[in-house]
Amino acid sequence: MEIRIEKIASPKAKPEDESKLGFGHIFTDHMFIMDYDAGKGWHDARIVPFGDISISPASMVLHYAQEIFEGLKAYRTPDGGIQFFRPIENFKRLNVSAERLVIPQLPVEDGLKALHALVELDKDWVPSAEGTSLYIRPFIFADDPYIGVRPAEHYYFMIIMSPSGAYYASGLDPVGIYVETNYVRSVKGGTGFTKTGGNYAASLAGQDEAHRQNYSQVLWLDGIERKYIEEVGSMNIFFVIDGEVVTPELRGSVLSGITRKSSLELCRKWGMKVSERAITIQEVAEAYDSGKLEEVFGTGTAAVISPVGRLKWGDKIMEINGNKIGAVTQRLYDTMTGMQYGKLPDDMGWIEKL
Amino acid sequence: MEIRIEKIASPKAKPEDESKLGFGHIFTDHMFIMDYDAGKGWHDARIVPFGDISISPASMVLHYAQEIFEGLKAYRTPDGGIQFFRPIENFKRLNVSAERLVIPQLPVEDGLKALHALVELDKDWVPSAEGTSLYIRPFIFADDPYIGVRPAEHYYFMIIMSPSGAYYASGLDPVGIYVETNYVRSVKGGTGFTKTGGNYAASLAGQDEAHRQNYSQVLWLDGIERKYIEEVGSMNIFFVIDGEVVTPELRGSVLSGITRKSSLELCRKWGMKVSERAITIQEVAEAYDSGKLEEVFGTGTAAVISPVGRLKWGDKIMEINGNKIGAVTQRLYDTMTGMQYGKLPDDMGWIEKL
Repeated sequence: MEIRIEKIASPKAKPEDESKLGFGHIFTDHMFIMDYDAGKGWHDARIVPFGDISISPASMVLHYAQEIFEGLKAYRTPDGGIQFFRPIENFKRLNVSAERLVIPQLPVEDGLKALHALVELDKDWVPSAEGTSLYIRPFIFADDPYIGVRPAEHYYFMIIMSPSGAYYASGLDPVGIYVETNYVRSVKGGTGFTKTGGNYAASLAGQDEAHRQNYSQVLWLDGIERKYIEEVGSMNIFFVIDGEVVTPELRGSVLSGITRKSSLELCRKWGMKVSERAITIQEVAEAYDSGKLEEVFGTGTAAVISPVGRLKWGDKIMEINGNKIGAVTQRLYDTMTGMQYGKLPDDMGWIEKL
Repeated sequence: MEIRIEKIASPKAKPEDESKLGFGHIFTDHMFIMDYDAGKGWHDARIVPFGDISISPASMVLHYAQEIFEGLKAYRTPDGGIQFFRPIENFKRLNVSAERLVIPQLPVEDGLKALHALVELDKDWVPSAEGTSLYIRPFIFADDPYIGVRPAEHYYFMIIMSPSGAYYASGLDPVGIYVETNYVRSVKGGTGFTKTGGNYAASLAGQDEAHRQNYSQVLWLDGIERKYIEEVGSMNIFFVIDGEVVTPELRGSVLSGITRKSSLELCRKWGMKVSERAITIQEVAEAYDSGKLEEVFGTGTAAVISPVGRLKWGDKIMEINGNKIGAVTQRLYDTMTGMQYGKLPDDMGWIEKL
């Protein structure tokens, strides 16, 4: 894959105050774009100035949502370097999503090459204030101007990037989570294990209900028996019950999170008792009642590790660990962010330097 | 709602041979477009020349698929007039979809006004050859340039139109349908009852498998017990078993089809025994084995009524009514298309003239 580069005529002004970056609304100077055409494959890789794209109002993505995405970050290290956290996992997962959505595979090495080239060109956009990072969004969408339901013959693969602020403005802050019992996010046989737009569109109504009740995220239950815990809005979920670290197994409806996988690997390395297994909300409530529910936390690229302080299931409100951060949660957060920002040595082989 | 009209400078050439229109790839001279902004509501209704739209690569529709659509047709009558079939039902259903996807409601009267204004302007695009029509696609999508998961604050409502050929080139032709047992389209609590992109994206893998086995469409089973019949790719499904017309009840995972509703109303009016109820694939197979499965047909806007000649479930292949069109199927098709094209009187109050 050869990448043609068209540089921006005059670079945009970078955000002046890195403490006010927020998330997802400022974009860097450039973007990566590549076409796919049936019979021709991926072609015409290019980096161009970030800007609007022109699509037909009949473009299939607007009607049938044949679209997938990934999310990862570039981190600024104390010596001014830039590094990624397991980026190969993102491009492998992009292909898992692609297969389910009948989207052509993107060679992992091409994805990584595009990532490095784009971040290299816009490296001055990687912020350096505490907790900040450059959020990177690779995505693929169908673009045929055709309003019939079939897999497309023309796709775009793009990468756009957004400098983003610290997720927690003042240190780790426990969040409140609402157990959704009405809406369902996904079911086995569906698309829940992929990062496709439809999963997120389907989640909005539940998220809205959680916000109305003053909870920041939704905990989804399985769509069949409505009792097994699946995942939180944009995170996987972990429980520490009587010394055992438990997270729902991957059964086809749960996203295979890279932070989830990394958390499991770290806990196992630390000699903790770790289980990927089916876990019901009833079991969590009983553990809470008997005083054995020690910690609850979410894992995801955005927040890395997110302590859960309150969990609401029907009329029952569980306050976890006195609404304070638990030891496992804190250790995972410190270790993972330490490695990501180059403040701790990478003894797992997870860090890839720009 | 006031509609500003900007006419095309020079109209495009219309398709010369209406027998070769196909479906969904030719578009008329104009399109309708209206903006929604939080705090301001729907505004700036306009009809402009059909053409590409410009969106940010961060536009939420490309990432989170917050998008809904409708599909209906304009029919040319023998006296040269133009008419619609129950268009109010489409705009009511658009709002049902909107509610589930946390998209703002669109006043039904505004949708109908936009429809009439656009078809009036492009009325020469309504074809008149036997079986042809103007396919009309209203749709709404989220357009905030923001890569976080939340309901958008800016939306577009658009209508585009495509002259389309006869669905059956040489009269009603029975189709083969494949019962999908691996993939799931939707589940109760999900978005199956709406016309949102994610449902269609999720259906592509099953459709692909059906095509590989030389079947034209997929019959979906419920996502929970994997035994109740839900719907076919882009149609609702009906069975005539021992004189009873049966279609799956609407349980939250099945689209409330307008042709489905109309078929039920006609069959009831004709004094047939009609049931909306749960029906398993096992019951269908048993009815087939005992010689009581008289007819199977799909209902939908595109094909109106589509006879099913073969049904494949695992290793079992059922040939329905000797792969010939049944009496109920034919009567519904003749009646419905007769009314739509103005060849039969509208004694149901379903026709709306332009």
